[in-house]
Amino acid sequence: MLRGFYFITDASLSKAGIISDVKEACRAGVCAVQYRNKYISTKLMIKEAMKLRKICRRELFVINDRIDVAQAVKADGMHLGQSDMPVSLARKILGKDKIIGLTIHSMAQAEEAVSCGVDYLGVAPVFTTNTKADAGRPVGLTLITKIRKKYKIPIVAIGGINLVNAQDVIRAGADSLCAISAVVGKSNIKAEISRFLKEINLGLAS
Amino acid sequence: MLRGFYFITDASLSKAGIISDVKEACRAGVCAVQYRNKYISTKLMIKEAMKLRKICRRELFVINDRIDVAQAVKADGMHLGQSDMPVSLARKILGKDKIIGLTIHSMAQAEEAVSCGVDYLGVAPVFTTNTKADAGRPVGLTLITKIRKKYKIPIVAIGGINLVNAQDVIRAGADSLCAISAVVGKSNIKAEISRFLKEINLGLAS
Repeated sequence: MLRGFYFITDASLSKAGIISDVKEACRAGVCAVQYRNKYISTKLMIKEAMKLRKICRRELFVINDRIDVAQAVKADGMHLGQSDMPVSLARKILGKDKIIGLTIHSMAQAEEAVSCGVDYLGVAPVFTTNTKADAGRPVGLTLITKIRKKYKIPIVAIGGINLVNAQDVIRAGADSLCAISAVVGKSNIKAEISRFLKEINLGLAS
Repeated sequence: MLRGFYFITDASLSKAGIISDVKEACRAGVCAVQYRNKYISTKLMIKEAMKLRKICRRELFVINDRIDVAQAVKADGMHLGQSDMPVSLARKILGKDKIIGLTIHSMAQAEEAVSCGVDYLGVAPVFTTNTKADAGRPVGLTLITKIRKKYKIPIVAIGGINLVNAQDVIRAGADSLCAISAVVGKSNIKAEISRFLKEINLGLAS
């Protein structure tokens, strides 16, 4: 399921708005959409996420950080970071049928995440990125390869990924990848994602 | 249950920290504690709220806005604002056993809140306040009296309340009141709340 391009919304980079961006992304054929919009009220988050829930029928639809919003809109699951709700608590609240993904920055965090029963790993930041101020030091392709050797868990790679390095990221062992600044804010999101999908497919085939 | 002083945490005004403030408030005999801390990570919110949950054994313990945090720490319920999750959705997620309070600014909002089955009303801002930037226009004592005439629902009054006007607020029909700037940030929170409790009791007795 998590194979291909994993789309994350970014209200600050978006030109046409999050709803339009996600429509474009779904038309391009992304495998997953993560709703992330930290700086608006809960009411507006739910309103926006409700619209996205209807748009993302085939795609995995997860909410960043906010389990309350995920429950309110019946999302497929959550994406958590290291400073969000602990995975064990999130699992208790959401139950075993919901998808929980966790961003990890080291092998130790990956091992802990797997032992906590997360459904997929976000490995970040692979390269240097300007999109997320608190992203931390790049982990490189080596961490992806190390995790892939040890676990079968789906890996989503994120951070500084572009059309030049996308194939390498997939070859290193990632199942899917996300690029924000290289996609959101461009005039044709669908076309940009299609370019990435070509690279991803070349990476998967090699 | 909601009769007396309703305490709301305020990290920006606090001198000794939220945990210490709540301990003082509970020693003073508040009826309820609302945890409100919007500008920290979910992980830290849960950590802080967990500590408060243990402190507030006799007091009603509710979480502002974040239903995920309320579920994570097993709070007694929620306090919602007009730009938080809609009450009907919150009720579905929390179930009928949890307390849901809603801040209202007009009779129309009060009527809607009662019809949605909220457990108590926060009437705000009663007077002009500097604590909450988005508090809106003062509703005055008249709104409290109007609601009290129509409904038996517990009323928590908030906004610009001090030792001079506290008795009037209770006499107008409020069951409890909250003062933030007049309490949090003072050197002796327990003593300040005790002074308010005296006024509240005089108001209830008259």
